[in-house]
Amino acid sequence: MAVTSKLINKGTRNLPKLSDAELKALDHIRKKGPLSRTSIAKLLGISRASITTIVGNLVDADVLIEVGHGKSGGGRRPQLLDVNPEMGFVAGIDLGATSVDLALADFRGDILTQKSFTADVRSEPKILLEKINAIILDMLAERSADASSLLGFGMGVPGPVQFDTGLLIQPPLMPDWEGYPIKQFIRQQFPNTLPAIDNDVNIMAIGEARFGGGIGMDNFMYVKIGTGIGCGIISKGEIYRGSDGCAGDIGHICVDYNGPVCHCGNKGCLEFMAAGPAIAQRGILAARNGESEKLEERVRAKGSQFNSKDIGELAAAGDRVANQIIYESGRMIGGVLAGLVNFYNPEAIFIGGGVSKIGHQFLSTIRQATLKRATALSTRSLSIDYSKLGDDAGVHGALWLALDNVFAPSSN
Amino acid sequence: MAVTSKLINKGTRNLPKLSDAELKALDHIRKKGPLSRTSIAKLLGISRASITTIVGNLVDADVLIEVGHGKSGGGRRPQLLDVNPEMGFVAGIDLGATSVDLALADFRGDILTQKSFTADVRSEPKILLEKINAIILDMLAERSADASSLLGFGMGVPGPVQFDTGLLIQPPLMPDWEGYPIKQFIRQQFPNTLPAIDNDVNIMAIGEARFGGGIGMDNFMYVKIGTGIGCGIISKGEIYRGSDGCAGDIGHICVDYNGPVCHCGNKGCLEFMAAGPAIAQRGILAARNGESEKLEERVRAKGSQFNSKDIGELAAAGDRVANQIIYESGRMIGGVLAGLVNFYNPEAIFIGGGVSKIGHQFLSTIRQATLKRATALSTRSLSIDYSKLGDDAGVHGALWLALDNVFAPSSN
Repeated sequence: MAVTSKLINKGTRNLPKLSDAELKALDHIRKKGPLSRTSIAKLLGISRASITTIVGNLVDADVLIEVGHGKSGGGRRPQLLDVNPEMGFVAGIDLGATSVDLALADFRGDILTQKSFTADVRSEPKILLEKINAIILDMLAERSADASSLLGFGMGVPGPVQFDTGLLIQPPLMPDWEGYPIKQFIRQQFPNTLPAIDNDVNIMAIGEARFGGGIGMDNFMYVKIGTGIGCGIISKGEIYRGSDGCAGDIGHICVDYNGPVCHCGNKGCLEFMAAGPAIAQRGILAARNGESEKLEERVRAKGSQFNSKDIGELAAAGDRVANQIIYESGRMIGGVLAGLVNFYNPEAIFIGGGVSKIGHQFLSTIRQATLKRATALSTRSLSIDYSKLGDDAGVHGALWLALDNVFAPSSN
Repeated sequence: MAVTSKLINKGTRNLPKLSDAELKALDHIRKKGPLSRTSIAKLLGISRASITTIVGNLVDADVLIEVGHGKSGGGRRPQLLDVNPEMGFVAGIDLGATSVDLALADFRGDILTQKSFTADVRSEPKILLEKINAIILDMLAERSADASSLLGFGMGVPGPVQFDTGLLIQPPLMPDWEGYPIKQFIRQQFPNTLPAIDNDVNIMAIGEARFGGGIGMDNFMYVKIGTGIGCGIISKGEIYRGSDGCAGDIGHICVDYNGPVCHCGNKGCLEFMAAGPAIAQRGILAARNGESEKLEERVRAKGSQFNSKDIGELAAAGDRVANQIIYESGRMIGGVLAGLVNFYNPEAIFIGGGVSKIGHQFLSTIRQATLKRATALSTRSLSIDYSKLGDDAGVHGALWLALDNVFAPSSN
């Protein structure tokens, strides 16, 4: 199925600049699926005449198409409008510390193909980005399309990002990427694309908001527990980045003023004491101290490959020391989340990231510690659960971000 | 100067229900002062024809008036529109633990008269509200107006409020107010009013956003330090209340898991360890332990009236122990704020409340502790300073809230 983008045939680089009212109409349609002109007018609080003009412009620009009829409210059955999925392709990429997930989707963000490969994020940016470009070209070729038909590109990276420029700022996991012009590199390969780059946990929160458990929620937190601990914040239905773009950096909240010195220079940071490496490290120490035979065996067998997953497996097999380690980590995370729940009073906390899956006991400890320590009022209707999208939250969010940037480009 | 409200003459109870587009136009004019039709159209991203209709409706409803001409952009000098200040009166009330501040303002929120009286918030609601009503009637009478010309009423109270209903929920400082129908009581006296009730620190944040240091800021925190410690959150330019209306309840964030038991039942809550009563208590203990002669003298002289202000005065006079007490409290508050800065990445933190004024050393300790413990990126452009409105933040915010509710009523 080849996509025939009228836009590309017209030789334009991307969408015409849409007016505020057009963007608002489009935003409702993107989030709420096919809608009639009357429904859109109601949502925007504008007249039927105005919406006819707005929708007319969007249909002329091929952004919207008519997709059949809805239920009648008395008279004729209303025509329904939806985003034209065949305007072009978008790519969503979730760059993890040790793996890369890629998806190619249509203009509604519906995934057409998905691929993953293992990679070390500490590699040179050029090498990793070339591999990403090659895979996207392959995915396009499978659909008889070429580089020019990619109109959107969204990527999450595990480090602090200046959102407008897409530049990483002092990323601890990937120092070689500091200031690397990712957007320009992508544009060389895909000239019709305006890339958008964001922090990985922000795209996970966006994914959860648009495609997962956060659909319809105004305010929630997405907490990723992996090598580090980070949080994506949804405020009034949209991602909240803060004034310097670094909101949600909860990994360096203090849990012990007399704790060990973190790589950031402060003492007792949450991620240094409770994320994956800390869990593994506590296991190695317990093994050395002869606290658990099974733990000793596992540490010996795995050597430098020993990690938090091993602790999870041993805990599931009933090892008391492994369970205690998970409990301690969960308690520290829950303690910090309790304070944030008092402050932010979210509807839900979604937990994701590789380390979060080391066992249901981990989730239940986090939940208990949060509920125990937060105020009664702020937890009255709070749910704390795993991400509904699991490992796919990132690519879903990256696709949505890519489309956001196609429709309403930020500075590029 | 008697206000002649056409609306009241027409006998309508309050404003006609405004459409979304009318509300948005009005919102820009309220926040950005007199604006031309062209400027409003630009801000809303709509056509000149649409804005002419919208503004026409608002002028017909007496909500907007023409207030002269702006600078010419080439052709004729554009007519400027502003809110009609003479539509009626609004009252703003800031109910503190020991005093009540009241202001009467016009429809732009410009204060006409201001009064204060000392009162114990633990009194019966009926007694306190009757006194508030009487003072508002006096202030109206001074302007030759009566109860019917009060169209807006906003009040901040020192406890958790369910915003839609205006009911207090388990307020620790004022248990008699739990579930008391404040709105209905006010409406009996001022039948043309739709009252709005909010938490005191929320109205202070609103005041700071509209009239103080937060003008033009997207995201900031207003922290009130008094008998308790609370925070008002501004997100994307608007007050953020959270999913249960209790966002910003930072007084019960834990600073010491092994700390003393707070009245909420948890250990080591920030406000139990660092707010006014804790500062005073630490002073009394130090006096008992003979750590400072001056402190002993002051505690003996003041008896049960000894409070955090005394510690501030002794610190200013150079008492080492008093300074140390202020330092410890500031350090705990700054430690919690550091975590919240990592999470929320605000542009600014404004500090207010009676106890915040016990000395500049207090502010500087809070500032240092916050900057030391938060990440470098999140504090790059962070300012931490006293509220620009000081004690008036509350009444200003209450007036704005009152007007918000007049123009776009919440459920009442």
